[in-house]
Amino acid sequence: MTDFLRAGGRAADAMRAVSITRGYTKHAEGSVLVAFGDTKVLCTASVEERVPPHKRGSGEGWLTAEYGMLPRATHTRGDREAARGKQSGRTQEIQRLIGRSLRCVFDLAKLGERTISLDCDVLQADGGTRTAAITGAFVAAHDAVSWLKERGLVADSPIRDFVAAVSVGIVEGTPLLDLEYTEDAACDTDMNVVMTGRGGFVEVQGTAEGASFSRAEMDALLGLAGKGIGELVAAQKAALGLAA
Amino acid sequence: MTDFLRAGGRAADAMRAVSITRGYTKHAEGSVLVAFGDTKVLCTASVEERVPPHKRGSGEGWLTAEYGMLPRATHTRGDREAARGKQSGRTQEIQRLIGRSLRCVFDLAKLGERTISLDCDVLQADGGTRTAAITGAFVAAHDAVSWLKERGLVADSPIRDFVAAVSVGIVEGTPLLDLEYTEDAACDTDMNVVMTGRGGFVEVQGTAEGASFSRAEMDALLGLAGKGIGELVAAQKAALGLAA
Amino acid sequence: MTDFLRAGGRAADAMRAVSITRGYTKHAEGSVLVAFGDTKVLCTASVEERVPPHKRGSGEGWLTAEYGMLPRATHTRGDREAARGKQSGRTQEIQRLIGRSLRCVFDLAKLGERTISLDCDVLQADGGTRTAAITGAFVAAHDAVSWLKERGLVADSPIRDFVAAVSVGIVEGTPLLDLEYTEDAACDTDMNVVMTGRGGFVEVQGTAEGASFSRAEMDALLGLAGKGIGELVAAQKAALGLAA
Amino acid sequence: MTDFLRAGGRAADAMRAVSITRGYTKHAEGSVLVAFGDTKVLCTASVEERVPPHKRGSGEGWLTAEYGMLPRATHTRGDREAARGKQSGRTQEIQRLIGRSLRCVFDLAKLGERTISLDCDVLQADGGTRTAAITGAFVAAHDAVSWLKERGLVADSPIRDFVAAVSVGIVEGTPLLDLEYTEDAACDTDMNVVMTGRGGFVEVQGTAEGASFSRAEMDALLGLAGKGIGELVAAQKAALGLAA
Amino acid sequence: MTDFLRAGGRAADAMRAVSITRGYTKHAEGSVLVAFGDTKVLCTASVEERVPPHKRGSGEGWLTAEYGMLPRATHTRGDREAARGKQSGRTQEIQRLIGRSLRCVFDLAKLGERTISLDCDVLQADGGTRTAAITGAFVAAHDAVSWLKERGLVADSPIRDFVAAVSVGIVEGTPLLDLEYTEDAACDTDMNVVMTGRGGFVEVQGTAEGASFSRAEMDALLGLAGKGIGELVAAQKAALGLAA
Amino acid sequence: MTDFLRAGGRAADAMRAVSITRGYTKHAEGSVLVAFGDTKVLCTASVEERVPPHKRGSGEGWLTAEYGMLPRATHTRGDREAARGKQSGRTQEIQRLIGRSLRCVFDLAKLGERTISLDCDVLQADGGTRTAAITGAFVAAHDAVSWLKERGLVADSPIRDFVAAVSVGIVEGTPLLDLEYTEDAACDTDMNVVMTGRGGFVEVQGTAEGASFSRAEMDALLGLAGKGIGELVAAQKAALGLAA
Repeated sequence: MTDFLRAGGRAADAMRAVSITRGYTKHAEGSVLVAFGDTKVLCTASVEERVPPHKRGSGEGWLTAEYGMLPRATHTRGDREAARGKQSGRTQEIQRLIGRSLRCVFDLAKLGERTISLDCDVLQADGGTRTAAITGAFVAAHDAVSWLKERGLVADSPIRDFVAAVSVGIVEGTPLLDLEYTEDAACDTDMNVVMTGRGGFVEVQGTAEGASFSRAEMDALLGLAGKGIGELVAAQKAALGLAA
Repeated sequence: MTDFLRAGGRAADAMRAVSITRGYTKHAEGSVLVAFGDTKVLCTASVEERVPPHKRGSGEGWLTAEYGMLPRATHTRGDREAARGKQSGRTQEIQRLIGRSLRCVFDLAKLGERTISLDCDVLQADGGTRTAAITGAFVAAHDAVSWLKERGLVADSPIRDFVAAVSVGIVEGTPLLDLEYTEDAACDTDMNVVMTGRGGFVEVQGTAEGASFSRAEMDALLGLAGKGIGELVAAQKAALGLAA
Repeated sequence: MTDFLRAGGRAADAMRAVSITRGYTKHAEGSVLVAFGDTKVLCTASVEERVPPHKRGSGEGWLTAEYGMLPRATHTRGDREAARGKQSGRTQEIQRLIGRSLRCVFDLAKLGERTISLDCDVLQADGGTRTAAITGAFVAAHDAVSWLKERGLVADSPIRDFVAAVSVGIVEGTPLLDLEYTEDAACDTDMNVVMTGRGGFVEVQGTAEGASFSRAEMDALLGLAGKGIGELVAAQKAALGLAA
Repeated sequence: MTDFLRAGGRAADAMRAVSITRGYTKHAEGSVLVAFGDTKVLCTASVEERVPPHKRGSGEGWLTAEYGMLPRATHTRGDREAARGKQSGRTQEIQRLIGRSLRCVFDLAKLGERTISLDCDVLQADGGTRTAAITGAFVAAHDAVSWLKERGLVADSPIRDFVAAVSVGIVEGTPLLDLEYTEDAACDTDMNVVMTGRGGFVEVQGTAEGASFSRAEMDALLGLAGKGIGELVAAQKAALGLAA
Repeated sequence: MTDFLRAGGRAADAMRAVSITRGYTKHAEGSVLVAFGDTKVLCTASVEERVPPHKRGSGEGWLTAEYGMLPRATHTRGDREAARGKQSGRTQEIQRLIGRSLRCVFDLAKLGERTISLDCDVLQADGGTRTAAITGAFVAAHDAVSWLKERGLVADSPIRDFVAAVSVGIVEGTPLLDLEYTEDAACDTDMNVVMTGRGGFVEVQGTAEGASFSRAEMDALLGLAGKGIGELVAAQKAALGLAA
Repeated sequence: MTDFLRAGGRAADAMRAVSITRGYTKHAEGSVLVAFGDTKVLCTASVEERVPPHKRGSGEGWLTAEYGMLPRATHTRGDREAARGKQSGRTQEIQRLIGRSLRCVFDLAKLGERTISLDCDVLQADGGTRTAAITGAFVAAHDAVSWLKERGLVADSPIRDFVAAVSVGIVEGTPLLDLEYTEDAACDTDMNVVMTGRGGFVEVQGTAEGASFSRAEMDALLGLAGKGIGELVAAQKAALGLAA
């Protein structure tokens, strides 16, 4: 069987060009434009001195995320969720995933009773918006923590590890890293993997789009994901000016 | 390290008592009460001679699912979603998962341009409601297909394989099969696995609740899940009066 | 004129088979499955240690009810109200009726500042769901009161009387007790009657579906209703193990 | 026991001053301001050449009603339902009642495939708004039918009888006709009765507010209601310039 | 070019007949029916002893407005916003305009920490409903202030000036004062002007419906508006029994 | 009186730095990032081959606009309208303004039966977001028309003139052009002016924030607006590579 040929001659195990731009807008405590190829997501981190009801009086903080897609981020214009009056199930699923992923690497007690709200808004979509969002949101949250430390609001950093995410999938029998839109639309199996900088799994969400997938296929996909996450964490560190 | 002791002396790799009762209510084309221990879900399959817009004129059918929890299915009373005016993100995530899982084993062309709607309503909750729902919904859908075949509405069965689901997780370091509520609340890692009767993966959704999880832990959990799914498919076959 | 012939040779003044099963689910303080023939409603009573704003600080408690119908409780599948995002006018009318009926036999001061929430969910519908719901909800509320008394949370029972409900109607000129679905769909006049154990009226809701009805017809219907309520209260007492 | 003394020395069996003003606003096919004492309701009837889905192609028409209360129709300002984003259960119950009551005296086949929409908006409330609304809406609908007949759109009048409504209730043991607000707030039993011009019952809705009510009390209330309806139908005929 | 001929021979710079009726309904602290020709708006002012969150503890009060249109105030029946579940953009724009206009002539500190809610409900529409609403709401608010002064709740009147509003527009090249519906539908340019009794501008909202408009046209329209406002303020004073 | 001193020594009649970047995102038929100083709005124009109901069969097209603000475009985080479930009155007012302004310079018959949807999303806010949105949306719409002409879908350009918008206001007695956020928050009078390339007025919306404003003040503001619009139209032409 011949391998699937990717656009631009990209190798099956290659990420698209990744860029992480800090300080993209000026008001937020953290503001990052993250690009995985043509997928571009603006991630802002906002510090608010209050916590949701279930954390009040606990001494612990909270991280939460919201996700949105500009109506014409996509090939054809989608409905504006604010005009339709509700967020789709897909939107809610993604923002819950982003929030859980970020909380997994935060020590909420060290954050103190405050909330970091992560807003991930897709300016341009070409596959992998949720994985780009998690990857960028971590950097925005990191900047928000630096802002808190500079003002003496937190002593010890609440960040326990890096976290990044990537999609992998099987297209025409070939396991691929970091699917772009046309690959995503054509894939048999699609998996989003969220991992920490030290290589622990935070989330694994694999879905058979057509036929079911085998254990061997899952192993191949997890291997690709690990490679991609390593590169993404390196890109996060470079963007933050930290040693690799 | 000592292993976690389960309620009632259940072994770490043991399912709770599973029961699948067909014909639980009389109007639906398929109506199944599925119990995983104290978790009880009523799954009905309704045949409707129409398809959603994206399938019109395609010659193909559709399966879709809705999920609900009676307000006092749980330890403390929850809001009624109909009264609150919207379904939670959790509800939407679950009903999307049930729909995808069922569609994965259906040949939509053989179903013809009609819809099977699966309603999964939790009468009593004790952990694992979504996995019980998938397992029961398959049997309800199977009965709906039999109903269609008896009336000559479909010639060839559109069902390509069985599908069932189970939760697995790590509690105090011990990998466990089929988590009940108290275990689910205490677990470090929680994974829902949907597999076909032939052992293919349909969905794998693993989430680190606290610390991240390792590849070895994932392997242990996938092994337990495979065992549980085998038993669930056997129970489905028994309920349907089919050879194991 | 010939009398209307009922299904199964039921007499015009006969109830369908009534069953009242306590302890149907395990979490609620009261949980009752009530059946009037093929109509089956799960009624749970939940005790909550708070009251709505208009009762705060009054020393009095509250009873409130919510009503729902599983989408495939009916012959053809109905919309799920949670998915549609609002409860129908019919649903709201019924749940207001259930709440008023129960409050009529409760001494709210003796209940103390707490709420009993009655959830009435129709698992299978064949006419008379609201009357079955009231009849079953009373038994669930009675069990919740027993639960409160066992824990010393109320001293004196707040229950002043029994309450039950039944539908009556005129089909093809014949007054009938306890209408089943096909009768309800065909009736000229439809009346729901809620009465106490001592025979007082709590609610009388009569509606002419086609032509208006006469005073003589109303008298005949009220007579039938009185007979039915007597039998229902006896069934409630039997289910609760109380002397008739 | 002394009888309850009514404001202004009104007799227990006396209606408040009733006025019915046709042509109150200029655009609607029927526009009536009805007053029962200080309760004032503007009822408009709008003819629309379409029917709801369940009547399409049936050759029959439809009547439907909507009810609203201006925010400061009442003693203290109430929420504007349009701003709150939903109609209360009470509003929906009332508008369903108005629609059923009007349809009961209409021959929908003679109306032809068109809809008469009745809008009943309370400008000032002092008890009995729903009964005033039904009484006024009938006159507005009558004017809309005249409008249709003048244009040759209907040949035969679809109106089979008059319909009017009144409230009755027991206050401090005294049965009263046409309750005003302070009486309504104080009553033990409250009953809304809708009757035709020929004296048939269309709706009877009796509710025990505190203790239950007896059959003798119901009989007394129905007698008062019959007297009130007679006077209301006479007022409708006078307003329409028809012989009594 | 010939001038546009107005209905009833009205001069281009003439207002329609204006009437302002105080005490139109009995519960509100201010209740005014204002008519500009066939446009009739009921404006009530309700005093509530609380303020919105942004004014709490400020010592200052607030004025706010809500606007509604009865469904058949118009030539053809419009949707009831309460039934549709949301207010249109037009409704929200108008009620924001009314609130701003009234606040501009109020000294909120002198009002004290209380709210005057202005409800403007259109009973009959024939163009200019928002300008009639502002003009009538001012008189209703003035009555509410008198009510507060009579009870000693405010010492000094918080009213700094009168405020009224009028529409102007260009139809077929002719600048016209106080557009009625047919003129409004035909106009090229439409302008709503809100001014104080002393002639200051509060709001100017000019919109080109077709072609853009010139500075000379704007000047002509502002001149007409000034004339109309002068007459409206005189009518307000007359209604309030104040010297011109 | 001393004049108000603007940030960065900006003259009272000077615009902030204006930039118009075409092709900012890749999917839309027109995609423009417009900046007025620190205010940055992404404006996309999407061509859709359908029209709203009121234009069907008319042979004419339509332009419509939606407006949104990313939650952290502002100094403090605002609610996400999609999560809250409705657009604010302000949002609706702005998107209606953008749509009317664009339609004023389009010949809808020449556009043909298709819609251009303009999405204006504020990435960073510092005052004047609606005026920047109109100015940028025109350029995006111009690009969408070029796209239609290149494909032969429209023969003649439907664009009749340029359109741009600017805010003006009076701060501490000084009339200023193009208010930034701190000026907007402090101003006594605020006016948004929309004009065509030939100098006609499309919209004038002036609001007194505190005291009313005089005719002389309005004249000063209209003069400043005219100067600003001239510069904005020149910037639009430069961005489009058209002769000034």
